Amino acid sequence: MTPTLFVIPLWADLLAVGIGALQGALFAAQFRDRRLDLLGVAIIGIATGFGGGLLRDILLGELPAALQSNWYLPVATLAALLGMLLQRVLTRLSALITVLDALTIGLFGAIGTTKALAMGVPPVPAVFVGALSAVGGSILRDLLLTLPIAIMQVGSLYAIAALAGAGTLVGLAALGVNVLVAAVVCVVVTFGVRVLAVLFKWSLPEQRHIQRIPTLRRRAR
Amino acid sequence: MTPTLFVIPLWADLLAVGIGALQGALFAAQFRDRRLDLLGVAIIGIATGFGGGLLRDILLGELPAALQSNWYLPVATLAALLGMLLQRVLTRLSALITVLDALTIGLFGAIGTTKALAMGVPPVPAVFVGALSAVGGSILRDLLLTLPIAIMQVGSLYAIAALAGAGTLVGLAALGVNVLVAAVVCVVVTFGVRVLAVLFKWSLPEQRHIQRIPTLRRRAR
Amino acid sequence: MTPTLFVIPLWADLLAVGIGALQGALFAAQFRDRRLDLLGVAIIGIATGFGGGLLRDILLGELPAALQSNWYLPVATLAALLGMLLQRVLTRLSALITVLDALTIGLFGAIGTTKALAMGVPPVPAVFVGALSAVGGSILRDLLLTLPIAIMQVGSLYAIAALAGAGTLVGLAALGVNVLVAAVVCVVVTFGVRVLAVLFKWSLPEQRHIQRIPTLRRRAR
Repeated sequence: MTPTLFVIPLWADLLAVGIGALQGALFAAQFRDRRLDLLGVAIIGIATGFGGGLLRDILLGELPAALQSNWYLPVATLAALLGMLLQRVLTRLSALITVLDALTIGLFGAIGTTKALAMGVPPVPAVFVGALSAVGGSILRDLLLTLPIAIMQVGSLYAIAALAGAGTLVGLAALGVNVLVAAVVCVVVTFGVRVLAVLFKWSLPEQRHIQRIPTLRRRAR
Repeated sequence: MTPTLFVIPLWADLLAVGIGALQGALFAAQFRDRRLDLLGVAIIGIATGFGGGLLRDILLGELPAALQSNWYLPVATLAALLGMLLQRVLTRLSALITVLDALTIGLFGAIGTTKALAMGVPPVPAVFVGALSAVGGSILRDLLLTLPIAIMQVGSLYAIAALAGAGTLVGLAALGVNVLVAAVVCVVVTFGVRVLAVLFKWSLPEQRHIQRIPTLRRRAR
Repeated sequence: MTPTLFVIPLWADLLAVGIGALQGALFAAQFRDRRLDLLGVAIIGIATGFGGGLLRDILLGELPAALQSNWYLPVATLAALLGMLLQRVLTRLSALITVLDALTIGLFGAIGTTKALAMGVPPVPAVFVGALSAVGGSILRDLLLTLPIAIMQVGSLYAIAALAGAGTLVGLAALGVNVLVAAVVCVVVTFGVRVLAVLFKWSLPEQRHIQRIPTLRRRAR
């Protein structure tokens, strides 16, 4: 059972990179104290847009996809500058952007997970690689802005959505389901978990510890 | 003289990863202002537990060991969550944890150094790769928590212990000593330097500069 | 048109690494609150001196050049410690260091760009790899010091100089110009843009956004 790769058309991949880059620039715009110049905005866009794919390919020992085509860098740069310029309008469309972004992490997760499986990575680390492909861009963005990494903090199940999607894909692939079908289910699951979490403000509990050992049931607030 | 790899049994490697992850979670628990959720704690655990091995394999161009088995990720995740829950008890056992951790960096250093030598890396960079394998987890941990990198600051010879161990291993290997013996000596040296440094509060001097050039002997406080 | 590699003699490469490491240590010396010890200074020097080459080779899937020779690590370490000790004198020579550094990023950019082209990377990502080779050391330095990444902020066209040089090289190579000639032009362009930017205080505009959409000509201050 070596699943074939789930490959999406270049335009769809570029669209996803563009959405990521645009969002990265919008995010960076909040931090005027960082005194980013135009190049700084472009770098944040590039890092957010294809950082996940970069980390995926570095872990898997492949030449990163974004370095194999002339399209990724200009698309990410233009999307980032557009995001910067149209910041006022776009913040009003934040619902639309959240929806598009949920689709984007679903796609990146599906691509990353199937790529890992196709290279013979076992199921559990394949889920890890898939989820990292999905959220790696936002990790790189936060590192470059020296901000606390958003996906590690209490929030709306961003990485959990990616993990759920990647886990579903790996499970279905293990059951022999066609990889294309499994990938589509992965996108749907990721998208669903993320959008529902935002709508209903679902989040994981904050880190806590057992207050007293004898009575294991009592916990710290 | 191409030394064979120093391979430790999977359970010992997983134990070392688990101790690293547990320690990472304990460390992160101090920073409640970061508002880490459960996933955040797991990520810190994973990064601390096998970050060193990850950096080692990325530098050497290998598929990371942690991605070749289903065991690493669950072990690191569970150890991190355990560390979080049992924080109260474990901080009382800090002496034990320091000792186990000194053993862990010794093991990671020995594995990393012999792996680099076996791949034909020359002696000096092999020491570098070995030491990075040992302390890379704590570097990643600090980067993800956006904290100053602990091993670069005045403290108890954490990285120096790893460098001493890796250097000894490379020296012995160059003298033709059996790699298994050299690796054991590496673990002993790393462990000894680290534990003695903690006991006797040894540390490297802080960065300083020559105050006046003519009298090279006078230094800044 | 597969251009041959632009290889510089080892001593020139080591000189460039040394200048980078020395500069990194001088930079780190400003942050006494970080309480760096001697090893911390060495790590900053190593990261600044060959961080760009490391990122380049990781992206291209090569064993990093700095791990293939015994020379890079001692040179970077010694240069960093020298930079730390002689800080007082060297800050008075800051004009000289800026000039040497401009030459260094030109060289690193030329090496990185031709290496990417020689490995079949298309023109646009080759420019990216080249520029990252040139400025990657300063990115790693800032990450390790948990400082805002300097090249993303308003300043004197450091990364832009590298991009201009790498872009020129790729353009000339596409026109069939001999790669050695193109590499020399790359160094000259990078050097020129950087030095002129420092002299005349050129910089990119800070990030901004369109204030009102109907009248596209009015912009935020």
